[in-house]
Amino acid sequence: MTDKNKLGFETAALDDEASALVIIDQTRLPNERKILRLTTQKEIWDAIYLLQVRGAPAIGVAAAYGIYLAARGIDTTDYDVFVKKFSAARDYLNSARPTAVNLSWALSRMGKIVEAGREDGVSEIKKRLLAEARAIQAEDIEMCRKIGEHGLSLLQPGMGLLTHCNAGQLATSRYGTATAPMYLGHERGYGFRIFCDETRPLLQGARLTAYELSEAGMDVTLLCDGMAASAMRNGWVDAVFTGADRVAANGDAANKIGTFPLAIAAKRFGVPFYICAPSSTVDLHTPTGKDIKIEQRPAEEVTTMWYKERMAPEGVKVFNPAFDVTDADLITAIITEKGVLRPPFTDSLRAAAKA
Amino acid sequence: MTDKNKLGFETAALDDEASALVIIDQTRLPNERKILRLTTQKEIWDAIYLLQVRGAPAIGVAAAYGIYLAARGIDTTDYDVFVKKFSAARDYLNSARPTAVNLSWALSRMGKIVEAGREDGVSEIKKRLLAEARAIQAEDIEMCRKIGEHGLSLLQPGMGLLTHCNAGQLATSRYGTATAPMYLGHERGYGFRIFCDETRPLLQGARLTAYELSEAGMDVTLLCDGMAASAMRNGWVDAVFTGADRVAANGDAANKIGTFPLAIAAKRFGVPFYICAPSSTVDLHTPTGKDIKIEQRPAEEVTTMWYKERMAPEGVKVFNPAFDVTDADLITAIITEKGVLRPPFTDSLRAAAKA
Repeated sequence: MTDKNKLGFETAALDDEASALVIIDQTRLPNERKILRLTTQKEIWDAIYLLQVRGAPAIGVAAAYGIYLAARGIDTTDYDVFVKKFSAARDYLNSARPTAVNLSWALSRMGKIVEAGREDGVSEIKKRLLAEARAIQAEDIEMCRKIGEHGLSLLQPGMGLLTHCNAGQLATSRYGTATAPMYLGHERGYGFRIFCDETRPLLQGARLTAYELSEAGMDVTLLCDGMAASAMRNGWVDAVFTGADRVAANGDAANKIGTFPLAIAAKRFGVPFYICAPSSTVDLHTPTGKDIKIEQRPAEEVTTMWYKERMAPEGVKVFNPAFDVTDADLITAIITEKGVLRPPFTDSLRAAAKA
Repeated sequence: MTDKNKLGFETAALDDEASALVIIDQTRLPNERKILRLTTQKEIWDAIYLLQVRGAPAIGVAAAYGIYLAARGIDTTDYDVFVKKFSAARDYLNSARPTAVNLSWALSRMGKIVEAGREDGVSEIKKRLLAEARAIQAEDIEMCRKIGEHGLSLLQPGMGLLTHCNAGQLATSRYGTATAPMYLGHERGYGFRIFCDETRPLLQGARLTAYELSEAGMDVTLLCDGMAASAMRNGWVDAVFTGADRVAANGDAANKIGTFPLAIAAKRFGVPFYICAPSSTVDLHTPTGKDIKIEQRPAEEVTTMWYKERMAPEGVKVFNPAFDVTDADLITAIITEKGVLRPPFTDSLRAAAKA
């Protein structure tokens, strides 16, 4: 764990004895603030599978610490025995969310430490694994901090900022991506007024973003997704910040469903619309947004609130895309840890990739 | 009751013996289809107060039949005694939703029948009250039917139509306003594909519109409000139809929150955006949308689902406007019972008011 944050909880971190993965159970938010100390592989697998920890960077950090804790518990000095048990633990953790790229990315990075350490002894490998997991977390924090600094350079004190879904600290180790300028500005007394779209159907904005920004002491107003255009009409929104799940080579950006209409409304009101994302999110092999496949999710997310109460007629067809694509012409800038990228994005994204 | 509808339920109608107000309990939809036969004034008052019957035109019809039933039960031939009891019943019903204009409008219209009948006897007055209540319902049906015919004249078979909130039969006596072209087209085999915005926060689209159009046998797809722009991008939406609560003299139209961003997105995709409303909704004394006061509603509608489960942090501020205003430049046409009004609306609305 690097420097302490101000929120009083970590999204995913190691405890001070390096003996447990500590997370805040995101499935209980916002109604209960339950901190979990996870020590067994089963507990860590469950936490990832059950979305108690979620968000691509946070999952990577949890997995890195998780596989370190597994390695720490392997009671042998024999390298081959160690490797066999380590690999089994790695495969097990990786099965918790097979399609989460950051999960396999972090586990693979930890695996390379083991492969490289054959001549150095199990005890040394364990030390290096701990250092590598800490590095993964530190790099995540640094990446978010840089996004925050670049974003903040565009802002003035007292501004109204609107965000959608949760690209916040709860999805990363610290600061978040879209929320990073808000956290850094808040530390420096900018006094932002923050507007949070609730983000149907899963309400990550209401449950997670409104929670973490309120906990940090910011001035937060929650609104339904269809109210954002009215907030803009009222002159309350000086900039929109959202994350992205994938950015195409031309700047088209896929993000949580509901982002695209927000960008269309922002354009009408001349409100700058910023995408904040790690440079790893930019995929130059995807030419445009048309080439991004949009995942369709279960109808029950829309028709049944909290999987309990039915709120739509039985049998009705449902359109429930997880993401939408915001056209590049609606995006004022794409902010990565490398800087503020401006249109034409085809040029600026390619240049940033080489930097 | 005029001609039977095809849905198997009436929003608000008199039974065949003219002895009870029959409504479908909208608070139970879509999970339960409960038909209520209301005979006492207390039952009718509760139905209006509890939103078991809702929608301006439907409330007017319920109130007209409700006050008729009250009059029917006044056991006297003395005009002055009758008037006193009738007025008490009228004041009582009017108190169920004091700000609902159609409630007081319908009760006032019924009151004029009583005033005009002093010389004709109580028995004759009761007959005229029944005829007047039936006329109010018949006029409502005819108004919606005309809106439907005008709207349908703009459409082709097989089109995809998107609507927001419930400006449907459940808000009127028959056909609805925004849904009237859908019902008439469905009767004539147009085979429309209907898209229903769920309409946060109170989910009238999911609970009511998706229900009534599905019951009528239409092809209905439900979606969250933030997904409508993606449906347009997919080329599924050929026209948007919504209702309006008030239309200003310049054509700016206030309607359920979430309508405005829908209109902005429709403009981007070149999808025609139609407002359907009775001509009584047009208020030439309101110059523009800026002059329309927007009601703010309780935070709990956004933060607490079904008033049961908390889904946002305690104490978070909430922006919860009931309506938004769609700028006239985003509206393709305003469809009233008088015809299809085109821009410039300042001229067409004024001309229609004189027609």
